[in-house]
Amino acid sequence: MKTISGLFTDHYQLSMAEGYFSAGRKDDRVNFDYFFRKNPFGSGFTIFAGLQVLFNLIEDFQYDSDDIDFLYKRGFHDDFLDFLKNFRFRGSIYAPKEGEVIFPTESILSVEGNIIEAQLLETLLLNTLNYQSLIATKANRLRQSAGKRSVMEFGMRRAQGWAAIHGSRAAVIGGADSTSNVQSAYIYDLDSSGTQAHSWVQSFDDELTAFRTFAQLRPKKCVLLVDTYHTLNSGVPNAIKVAKEMQQQGHQLFGIRLDSGDLAYLSKKARIMLDKAGLPEVKIVASNQLDEYLIKSLIHQGAKIDVFGVGTNLITARDDGALDGVYKLSAVNDRPTIKLSEDVAKVTLPGKKKVIRYLNGNGEFYADGILLSEDDPDDVDMIYHPQYADKKSMVNGLEKENLTSKVFENGNVLTAKKSIGEISEYRSLRVSQLADEYKRFEYPHIYKVGLSSNLIQLRMDMIAESKRSK
Amino acid sequence: MKTISGLFTDHYQLSMAEGYFSAGRKDDRVNFDYFFRKNPFGSGFTIFAGLQVLFNLIEDFQYDSDDIDFLYKRGFHDDFLDFLKNFRFRGSIYAPKEGEVIFPTESILSVEGNIIEAQLLETLLLNTLNYQSLIATKANRLRQSAGKRSVMEFGMRRAQGWAAIHGSRAAVIGGADSTSNVQSAYIYDLDSSGTQAHSWVQSFDDELTAFRTFAQLRPKKCVLLVDTYHTLNSGVPNAIKVAKEMQQQGHQLFGIRLDSGDLAYLSKKARIMLDKAGLPEVKIVASNQLDEYLIKSLIHQGAKIDVFGVGTNLITARDDGALDGVYKLSAVNDRPTIKLSEDVAKVTLPGKKKVIRYLNGNGEFYADGILLSEDDPDDVDMIYHPQYADKKSMVNGLEKENLTSKVFENGNVLTAKKSIGEISEYRSLRVSQLADEYKRFEYPHIYKVGLSSNLIQLRMDMIAESKRSK
Repeated sequence: MKTISGLFTDHYQLSMAEGYFSAGRKDDRVNFDYFFRKNPFGSGFTIFAGLQVLFNLIEDFQYDSDDIDFLYKRGFHDDFLDFLKNFRFRGSIYAPKEGEVIFPTESILSVEGNIIEAQLLETLLLNTLNYQSLIATKANRLRQSAGKRSVMEFGMRRAQGWAAIHGSRAAVIGGADSTSNVQSAYIYDLDSSGTQAHSWVQSFDDELTAFRTFAQLRPKKCVLLVDTYHTLNSGVPNAIKVAKEMQQQGHQLFGIRLDSGDLAYLSKKARIMLDKAGLPEVKIVASNQLDEYLIKSLIHQGAKIDVFGVGTNLITARDDGALDGVYKLSAVNDRPTIKLSEDVAKVTLPGKKKVIRYLNGNGEFYADGILLSEDDPDDVDMIYHPQYADKKSMVNGLEKENLTSKVFENGNVLTAKKSIGEISEYRSLRVSQLADEYKRFEYPHIYKVGLSSNLIQLRMDMIAESKRSK
Repeated sequence: MKTISGLFTDHYQLSMAEGYFSAGRKDDRVNFDYFFRKNPFGSGFTIFAGLQVLFNLIEDFQYDSDDIDFLYKRGFHDDFLDFLKNFRFRGSIYAPKEGEVIFPTESILSVEGNIIEAQLLETLLLNTLNYQSLIATKANRLRQSAGKRSVMEFGMRRAQGWAAIHGSRAAVIGGADSTSNVQSAYIYDLDSSGTQAHSWVQSFDDELTAFRTFAQLRPKKCVLLVDTYHTLNSGVPNAIKVAKEMQQQGHQLFGIRLDSGDLAYLSKKARIMLDKAGLPEVKIVASNQLDEYLIKSLIHQGAKIDVFGVGTNLITARDDGALDGVYKLSAVNDRPTIKLSEDVAKVTLPGKKKVIRYLNGNGEFYADGILLSEDDPDDVDMIYHPQYADKKSMVNGLEKENLTSKVFENGNVLTAKKSIGEISEYRSLRVSQLADEYKRFEYPHIYKVGLSSNLIQLRMDMIAESKRSK
């Protein structure tokens, strides 16, 4: 399924690429880092997602003759366009596994390559990783609130257009059990599921006939929507009637769905009615503008809900609709580069780097260190706060992991392809290695991310040099 | 460019479709209405967008043998799948023109068809119209704040994944002058534009060389990014040097771009520096987390900005990331249907309907009336508030327009294809027909949308009948 081409980029990437080409710099080697500055939703961490999709899209990131004609009409020059005809991204990518727990500031992903390929890829890379990491993080918050209850992703109709295609994938990575989105289920082999709509019930002369017909057709996993007319006076009693009829035919009603009204009150009443009718196994599905806070509150109120259907607030990450990931140049031909800013937090980290995760003896994450790639992790005893150099942490003797490794080289993916289920399991494992204080919704503990002394020194030197040169 | 198939739908649409098929109801005729309940962003109105894209996607909304195999594995039955093999949407669509000004409650778009095609289309239709209408509405607010200054849409890297593809289109419909998104520019023939990134400047040994090289390559519409090191001490002075060199070669620097810091202060200082250097024609482009409120404030502060580049806040509609459009069944085999709710505002409007726009003598919109399709508009003298029947408006003698017409029938689009420029012009015309009180950002005047007495009566009768039947 090819939708994108090398045109999936910002106009200025092509202008700059042409510039590098014309300036005879096409073989310059560069390093770009992908990182973000702030966890979304006030979370204490972020889930890394989108990497395997990026690998697939890199394959499509080429220019066919129609693309070339278009660029010619838009003023790009023949010699550059001839070069683009054979363009393929052949750089290297260093990254964590999909599903990894990641934090602000750290160079999560690095691209090494020639200056044109690394520049042209920027927009596609940011577009892919920012959105999927955002949604996986949101889904993980829902998963946290729902505990052992199920979460269905429902949001395709309210998704931001084709965002739905990758959004449902990211939701399952983050912890949703299934999606209503059949297109994504097809592409990514996700569990797809659904119940029924009000239109089904309305389209019959009466609610009981609507329920009965649906149950006859889909006796397995049948869920009946009980709020089209009146939930407790009509919907639940009719569902109970049909559940009893199903029992006589050897089937079992899977559940009922509440989609409006006071979900705490209605679910408790419905649970009592179902239990009294001898139907304790019939589940209650609830939906209607749910998010992680409402789910928490419903559970706290003792709502009898087994499955939460979450739509808009998950697929659009409505309360914080973008991850602010950026892609910054950190080296040209092995010369480190820096971007200054009047805002100290926005000064970039120069040079090629790697990220080390330090663990406590019990397997819990303790801190992440950003080191220069030539730093030997065994020689790094201390990491320093990115802005306040007097804040530092001893890391010697701690267990260490390389957070990133080379995952893509010369057009080839170097890691085994994982199913979405496997990625979600890895996410679950890694989240479990994070202490609870980092996971609370309100003022989570801030996870330590520090720099090696060599990186601190390089940055200080480059800032000083830049001031001298004025 | 085919990305979607008939699988671009919610799982339950396929379950229900199979249900209708198995129940022998595949030839039942139905009517569904698309409407929304709340303008986004607290706006006084919404811009209708996405219709031509929907027409294109309907062509792709089919099931090939891979799709059928997939559905078979997911438990759908052979006879239904045989039916799906030849499935095409052949229903009729009634809608306003793209770019129309629309309001909550009104049946903006109606689908008439057999029960299976009308049901299956729901998710695709909502996904397409909700997002594009949201973004066009946001862009129109930016356009309103920017006045005669330019607005560039910049958000591809922060867009919700492939939302970018249609988001940039909708942004231009709503009033953006251009987009950075080359993929959308290619598909929809939009103006694409861009400046340069910090990485360009960083990749050279010094800023002046970076600027000079770019200017030599792109002497037309050259914009230099001046904040990589120090805006006023280095960026602007270097840009001025290059502008002078360009003049000697018969070229003119188009502009400079500010992307950080205090945009009001920096733009004023930069303007003075440029003017003193005899470069009054060099424009100032500004970007960095802009939205309609910041743009208004910058202009109010006397900022010297000619072009606003808007990213995340436009393409994700960050402060209100979803339009709540729904698609509700209003008739089955010419029998009107209703969905009740404990929330009176959520009771649907039964039956087939049409929307009439009433105008004052001076061409300004006065009110919209929702009439039953059998109502003769010439006989409707009064329209009634949807909830408070004592609130009513005289409409006799007013100029009238049919807001909607049949635009799609039997697989064919009935209207001439419009360019995005034409759609944007229509949007601009229609917004100009709306009085200023509806356009302010704070507590806009609420536009009148009323029902005909026959529609009020039908709804009352159906509610009463539903109560009797219990």
